[in-house]
Amino acid sequence: MGRNIIVIGAVALGPKAACRLKRLEPEANVIMLDRGLRISYGGCGIPYYVSGDVSDAAELQSTSFHLLRDEKFFRDTKDIEVRPGVEAVAIDRAAKTVRVRTLATGAEETLPYDKLVIATGSTPRRLPIPGADLPGVFAVADLDAAVEIRARLTAGEVGSAVIIGAGFIGLEMAVAVADMWGVQTTVVEYAGHVLPTVLDRTLAHMARLHMQDKGVAFRLGCQVVAIEGAGRAERVVLGTGETLAADLVIMAVGVAPNSGLASEAGLDVSPRGGITVNDRLETSDPDIFAGGDCVELSGLVTGQPMYLPLGSLANRQGRVIGDNLAGGDSRTPGAAGSWCVKLFDLAAAGTGLTLEAARRAGLDAVQVHASQLDRAHFYPDKGFMFLDMVAERGTGRVLGVQGVSEMGDALIGRINTVAAMLPQRATVADVSNVELPYSPPFTTALDILNMLANVAENVLAGRNRSLLPHEFAELFAQRESGATYFLDCRELGNAAPFVEKYPDLWHHIPQGELARRIDELPRDRKVVLLCNTGARSYEALVTLAAAGITNAYNVAGGMVSLVRSGVKL
Amino acid sequence: MGRNIIVIGAVALGPKAACRLKRLEPEANVIMLDRGLRISYGGCGIPYYVSGDVSDAAELQSTSFHLLRDEKFFRDTKDIEVRPGVEAVAIDRAAKTVRVRTLATGAEETLPYDKLVIATGSTPRRLPIPGADLPGVFAVADLDAAVEIRARLTAGEVGSAVIIGAGFIGLEMAVAVADMWGVQTTVVEYAGHVLPTVLDRTLAHMARLHMQDKGVAFRLGCQVVAIEGAGRAERVVLGTGETLAADLVIMAVGVAPNSGLASEAGLDVSPRGGITVNDRLETSDPDIFAGGDCVELSGLVTGQPMYLPLGSLANRQGRVIGDNLAGGDSRTPGAAGSWCVKLFDLAAAGTGLTLEAARRAGLDAVQVHASQLDRAHFYPDKGFMFLDMVAERGTGRVLGVQGVSEMGDALIGRINTVAAMLPQRATVADVSNVELPYSPPFTTALDILNMLANVAENVLAGRNRSLLPHEFAELFAQRESGATYFLDCRELGNAAPFVEKYPDLWHHIPQGELARRIDELPRDRKVVLLCNTGARSYEALVTLAAAGITNAYNVAGGMVSLVRSGVKL
Repeated sequence: MGRNIIVIGAVALGPKAACRLKRLEPEANVIMLDRGLRISYGGCGIPYYVSGDVSDAAELQSTSFHLLRDEKFFRDTKDIEVRPGVEAVAIDRAAKTVRVRTLATGAEETLPYDKLVIATGSTPRRLPIPGADLPGVFAVADLDAAVEIRARLTAGEVGSAVIIGAGFIGLEMAVAVADMWGVQTTVVEYAGHVLPTVLDRTLAHMARLHMQDKGVAFRLGCQVVAIEGAGRAERVVLGTGETLAADLVIMAVGVAPNSGLASEAGLDVSPRGGITVNDRLETSDPDIFAGGDCVELSGLVTGQPMYLPLGSLANRQGRVIGDNLAGGDSRTPGAAGSWCVKLFDLAAAGTGLTLEAARRAGLDAVQVHASQLDRAHFYPDKGFMFLDMVAERGTGRVLGVQGVSEMGDALIGRINTVAAMLPQRATVADVSNVELPYSPPFTTALDILNMLANVAENVLAGRNRSLLPHEFAELFAQRESGATYFLDCRELGNAAPFVEKYPDLWHHIPQGELARRIDELPRDRKVVLLCNTGARSYEALVTLAAAGITNAYNVAGGMVSLVRSGVKL
Repeated sequence: MGRNIIVIGAVALGPKAACRLKRLEPEANVIMLDRGLRISYGGCGIPYYVSGDVSDAAELQSTSFHLLRDEKFFRDTKDIEVRPGVEAVAIDRAAKTVRVRTLATGAEETLPYDKLVIATGSTPRRLPIPGADLPGVFAVADLDAAVEIRARLTAGEVGSAVIIGAGFIGLEMAVAVADMWGVQTTVVEYAGHVLPTVLDRTLAHMARLHMQDKGVAFRLGCQVVAIEGAGRAERVVLGTGETLAADLVIMAVGVAPNSGLASEAGLDVSPRGGITVNDRLETSDPDIFAGGDCVELSGLVTGQPMYLPLGSLANRQGRVIGDNLAGGDSRTPGAAGSWCVKLFDLAAAGTGLTLEAARRAGLDAVQVHASQLDRAHFYPDKGFMFLDMVAERGTGRVLGVQGVSEMGDALIGRINTVAAMLPQRATVADVSNVELPYSPPFTTALDILNMLANVAENVLAGRNRSLLPHEFAELFAQRESGATYFLDCRELGNAAPFVEKYPDLWHHIPQGELARRIDELPRDRKVVLLCNTGARSYEALVTLAAAGITNAYNVAGGMVSLVRSGVKL
């Protein structure tokens, strides 16, 4: 007679844990419950269902070989009993039982367990503002909400939408409704830039500008204080007093872990609400495991607790729980927070910490920014990639890397590389030497990631003093003060329009002439060097340093990054 | 007065080392020589110049901002003196001088050095066969050879070509001449499959079949014994006695390190001909550094010496030499041998060891093979990726990974990940848990690389017993013997054509019905399980094991890998 395993929650982690356990211990009796009627679906696919890229909601719930992952599927192919529409209402840890209630009938039952898995996920937060409950106001809670949103779009009931929150889900939903349905879409975000927890501002500005080019409007540093309408959402009121028309309002302001059941059972729950687990994903009761959106994780880079509700983590954690349920000893590494998102034609991705997150964690961090072609420059089909690297002073440890590019797979390939190195506390020297494949149609001889680490190494060593685009913009705004000497190191053809536009302010010496024209430079002012991508301006910085001019800075990412991040010249 | 640094060789590593040194030590006097007249070019771009993708050879010698990297460029922008057409003829280590000869005039000169860099590269091997010197027979030695080959193509002088050698350069040149110039092209390779040093046969067959679909012919396991023609190459004679028409013959049978100068100066050179260097890239004389194609490296995975003439390694090594020339202490990790290549619409890539290479190195290795969609299965735009992973029994250490896919950047992103983990002696468990970004337009929730490592872990644990496509093909060829029971675990629609074609031999039970129909299976014969990708047949294997049927195997990569690797059914 097999052991009784109960899994509470049947969306991502639950099914993964249950299936892995059954493969390792076929004799186990596994019951998996879920409050919802739709189970085992790809929640991250919701924006692509809303957009219409995925035509039928059932596709999100199907295997790659087109079988619907429903009760019958789990019974026949996995020998797992699934009970949709059944809620776990209480855990009796002493008796090792779970009381469950069938939502349709209210009938209750008590199930015994040898091991229990809590995979209760999370609930989208809703802003406590007037009108939050009006019809037409949604949170992307589950597939049912998605079906309702898409039905309204399909029926032509939505002319304008306001998305509250510029995180992953907010931006993905903005793309979905604006791109495929032509809805007039505005994203309202409290922070000063989009994707505020995962991008610093240079890359965030690039992402936002791309979305603006595609027709999405943004209100940054702005709050929604009310939703108004006669019986349904019609408009949104901002903290500024302005009003935006909105037939559809989507709140995408984060999620909260569903840890009530666990805390009522006396399991340890963190102050921020996530169930506390160790690296085996055991809760404070060794017979109860938990994972996915309902737990708090240990941050890989900071060692501090963090909450990371990501589907990819849930899937990997499910396997670890399956192993440990079966008597194994699998461990999860700390969570780095690797992510990617598609915003129209642009991809953004990252792993580890932003500069802002690193500083908040008390780390002495620097950020470098670089722009480079993602393929050999002589290869016909290529695009720019923009990368930030965050590293710790003193140790040279890499804390994070983020990027944006139209070449999404190529960008993610670089993020993958760093994600694989973070657990080893890799330094910039390690990334500088990492041996990535090279062929002109795909990459550059010195990979952009090697190059980025080289830049970081030069910055940490004090050889490269660079300005981020917004830092340049602040200096350039005060150009009339004369405190800063702006020097364009490119060839004449590139520099001429700016020399013409800013006579006496925009200076020009090609990098190749700099050494012999060094006396033309002032020695009593700050010098800012600019080229196309930051490569020649760094060379120029070295030339200046050799001539004793050390109050000099180059613009990271050069003119390409200035233009792409919206610095007006 | 700065130190005198002489760099012998000005293609890839030489310029990189010289430029890095000059940035760190601007006062150094750097002289860089090269026998050739064209310097600092991207040799890996030669096939793309030959094809016409790159219109002008000068583009391979230009910076990304379109400056030609010639003598003037290095003098003006880098303060480096370059002497093209000058050969180093002898090194006097006691006197610390190099004797150099200007090839055009024969004039000789002796230059003093404080530190010397040998970056003499390699020379393509030429087969010692009759006709090897005929006009129309080329090795891809340098940009000059490329210019000549393209001139002949442009002039319409080439109707048929034979490429000898199916390594990177051979296949890239085959693509170049067949794809863009419509030349009837045959690749002749001595080994039994293409890319024999970097791919095992399943993936190699997939790559070859793709090239065959594009019109390239192959003769594998075959030698060229002579090249014949009246005053120029007209045909190639194979060891079989057959003759192939060939207006153009390209020998791409590997390269040999140019280490004569070093060995004549008494520096240590390995039995295989590469200059011996330590991880600082110092030769046996601490005042002389060497790197790139002329040195022998230490293999990262095996710890054994290996020869890896790759441009990407040369570039990274150049920076290390530059650091150390300037008094730093930079180190190169061992070389993994990361590579990628574009073959028409298909990419192939890898890092570390193949199964064959691992076994040759004396390692107790296993290989797993997997096929999977590279994106969420419900996302409209997706493709298959085929991956091999080689791991060590006992330790679970990952020794290498290789793949082919139409999604080149996505494939390389996975190879990057493993390349970053090899230096840490990562295990399959580490790769199983590596935290890669997920979003449906780009990846799968459980990344294909996590999945591949999971398969490897199941194989190493003995839970998954899998057959490679060619192993299946061998068993299936003997199907009439009745020794093996072939079971298709897919749904009826997939299985029906095969059941019809092979009555009584091709059995069918959908995986979902297997548990309750287990008695239909024989217990006295080997059972081979097949599904689309290997996922369901593994589940079936577990079901069989639970029922006590252990003489069972599943087909790795499933029907998709069988079809793509050319197994006829």
